[in-house]
Amino acid sequence: MTPSLETAGDTVAGLLAEIADLGRDPVRGGYSRPVHGPAETELREWFVSHAERRRLEVHTDRNGIVWAWAPAHDGSRDRAVVTGSHLDSVPGGGAYDGPLGVASALVAFDQLAARGVGANRARAIAVFPEEEGSRFGVACLGSRLLTGAIAPDRALALKDADGLTFAEVARDAGLAPEGFGPDPDLLGSLDTFLELHVEQGRGLVDLGQPVAVASSILGHGRWRVSLTGEGNHAGTTLMGDRRDPMVAAARLVVRLRDLARAVPDARATVGRLIPVPGGTNVIASHVDLWVDVRHPDDGVTAGLVREVREAAGLLAAEEGCAATMTEESLSSTVDFDAGLRDELLSVLPNAPVLGTGAGHDAGVLGSQVRTGMLFVRNPTGVSHSPEEAVEDGDAEAGAAALADSLELLLRA
Amino acid sequence: MTPSLETAGDTVAGLLAEIADLGRDPVRGGYSRPVHGPAETELREWFVSHAERRRLEVHTDRNGIVWAWAPAHDGSRDRAVVTGSHLDSVPGGGAYDGPLGVASALVAFDQLAARGVGANRARAIAVFPEEEGSRFGVACLGSRLLTGAIAPDRALALKDADGLTFAEVARDAGLAPEGFGPDPDLLGSLDTFLELHVEQGRGLVDLGQPVAVASSILGHGRWRVSLTGEGNHAGTTLMGDRRDPMVAAARLVVRLRDLARAVPDARATVGRLIPVPGGTNVIASHVDLWVDVRHPDDGVTAGLVREVREAAGLLAAEEGCAATMTEESLSSTVDFDAGLRDELLSVLPNAPVLGTGAGHDAGVLGSQVRTGMLFVRNPTGVSHSPEEAVEDGDAEAGAAALADSLELLLRA
Repeated sequence: MTPSLETAGDTVAGLLAEIADLGRDPVRGGYSRPVHGPAETELREWFVSHAERRRLEVHTDRNGIVWAWAPAHDGSRDRAVVTGSHLDSVPGGGAYDGPLGVASALVAFDQLAARGVGANRARAIAVFPEEEGSRFGVACLGSRLLTGAIAPDRALALKDADGLTFAEVARDAGLAPEGFGPDPDLLGSLDTFLELHVEQGRGLVDLGQPVAVASSILGHGRWRVSLTGEGNHAGTTLMGDRRDPMVAAARLVVRLRDLARAVPDARATVGRLIPVPGGTNVIASHVDLWVDVRHPDDGVTAGLVREVREAAGLLAAEEGCAATMTEESLSSTVDFDAGLRDELLSVLPNAPVLGTGAGHDAGVLGSQVRTGMLFVRNPTGVSHSPEEAVEDGDAEAGAAALADSLELLLRA
Repeated sequence: MTPSLETAGDTVAGLLAEIADLGRDPVRGGYSRPVHGPAETELREWFVSHAERRRLEVHTDRNGIVWAWAPAHDGSRDRAVVTGSHLDSVPGGGAYDGPLGVASALVAFDQLAARGVGANRARAIAVFPEEEGSRFGVACLGSRLLTGAIAPDRALALKDADGLTFAEVARDAGLAPEGFGPDPDLLGSLDTFLELHVEQGRGLVDLGQPVAVASSILGHGRWRVSLTGEGNHAGTTLMGDRRDPMVAAARLVVRLRDLARAVPDARATVGRLIPVPGGTNVIASHVDLWVDVRHPDDGVTAGLVREVREAAGLLAAEEGCAATMTEESLSSTVDFDAGLRDELLSVLPNAPVLGTGAGHDAGVLGSQVRTGMLFVRNPTGVSHSPEEAVEDGDAEAGAAALADSLELLLRA
């Protein structure tokens, strides 16, 4: 790869400034960039234009993952070293969760070119769709399809809040849903995937360091609980005649919190809850809520989910309602490759080693590819919120650490 | 008014069939026809076209209420007898709540013309906007503005779920928001307002009658509770570090139900609850929920709301959150005019007299105009739901009862 004069001056902060106006959410604050929505589509186009300016070969794979390749001298894409992240966001999310890793990848590639790191082996930047699962409910949907962690039929039948299936939305986005599914050839060509991400906690703040190497991702899963009662008029229906799924849902939210509190290291959250029809003067006929559960020990997660499932059934029955609870995704705790971690620490000797409670495509890919992550300091420690932050100096330090890491891997 | 041959064959069921496809909600089922949305706009155009075919003089007043007038022989609109209802719906509502009263008014006017009921005094059909309050949160917004029950400034600042103000939406709909407010001249010209509505309970089913005369509307109000905590990542934030407004909201929903159960005849409902940002993997930063409280005794309502307000503050504080509770609307119990009720019973001798727990524009107008209501049997007893129902024969019986009632009033 030859460095392009056009891109020599790009900084991470400068790149992020280019997209600072895309997908702002005037109601929630921050950004709402659901996959294949207008903002996320424009963000992918922005990435493609930067990749093409860098003479990378851009290719969208069968699962909608965008790859920007610099093949080896001999044209080979084998034994590739890949970095990247995602451009979709949670509703009302921050500016860094996802885009920081993509912008840092572009800047790191510039630095590799400037340093004259040769093309003995292929390198690439990957942008994954629906990492957050905020539109179709399953996080890391692109990497799950790539690795076979989700069956294509199930993925394509997922619906967004407007009732559109993932298949419909993907087809409208120019993809061919019938081709979705595992891609063992592509996976086999990858030697290492290294994802840079904003830290989603205060580990680096407390340690006074700008960049960390990841140790592990906490096991996590999502379940959808559907509670069905009887919709009716809020004024004409006596309290004793009601089968109100909102009351059942509320009791379940409280029970979930109490159950999780009793289990050390467990986290359980209901952040999304939708009463149907959702009118002020209407007893809901139906409530959907999503339960997010995480624990380092998969067995403990399973036990906690079992308790939640039992509670949902009992509480619903007490309110004259019916409950179903469906697993939408489940990921075991992932320990990143220890050998890779030690290699990274050899070029980042001051970097602490930190675990995270957040899921990432790197965690999904880790089942089939040697995988690691770098975290960049977040002064607020808050994420999935407009409060999420990265200082400019830390962003550039992160890109430099990514370049150092990639150089080490590419020279190996 | 001369009967028009074109309209002589209209039935209530036939008119409702014409609009059966407008505003269907593919996700919730039933109809979602928010005020000034595409469906409600088309419904008003449908009404205007039917009114014009009947040679009624159509006029949209300063508050967006559509009037279709048949002035008296001498051109006067004084001492007018008015019927009508609304065309907006709750989200996922039924086909009859609102449109039944409008369609029945058209058919009743046809019958008056066919019967040769003269134009000694003016008659009109009125279609009120935002009766349900499902878009801007305040029910009977049109009649409240007309009567001065809500200040125009407050009404115009109300926002819908997309953050659009009522002023913006009204202006886009071709109205002049600066003119909104009480219209004493118009009110002064009205002698009687009689609204026909689907029954929202099982009173007529149990009594085996198709049509009832209303006695009263239960006092009711709506309050918006806003709970603010700290948005953060569902995976990286320990249970003990959370300030989760969803947990506070859930505890309040349960407490509200328990408080209402302890008060005979009270109804209290949370049918609408919105976590912000609303992502599965995000601890909400904010939850808005709406509390609907109804009781025949205004003092009891006030006491119950006081308890809810205290509970909101305490429960929020226990979760590290803050709570505000704002009254969006409050209506006292309305006893319809007893003299009018007896007049109606003189032409509808078999009609039982029933109260209702549901609010109506007739209740708001009742503060300044002689007002009554007719209810038509609903075989399911369910309302604000796709299950709401009226049999065709009952719909025609309702229109005939309305015509009989209007004839009596017009001949007086």
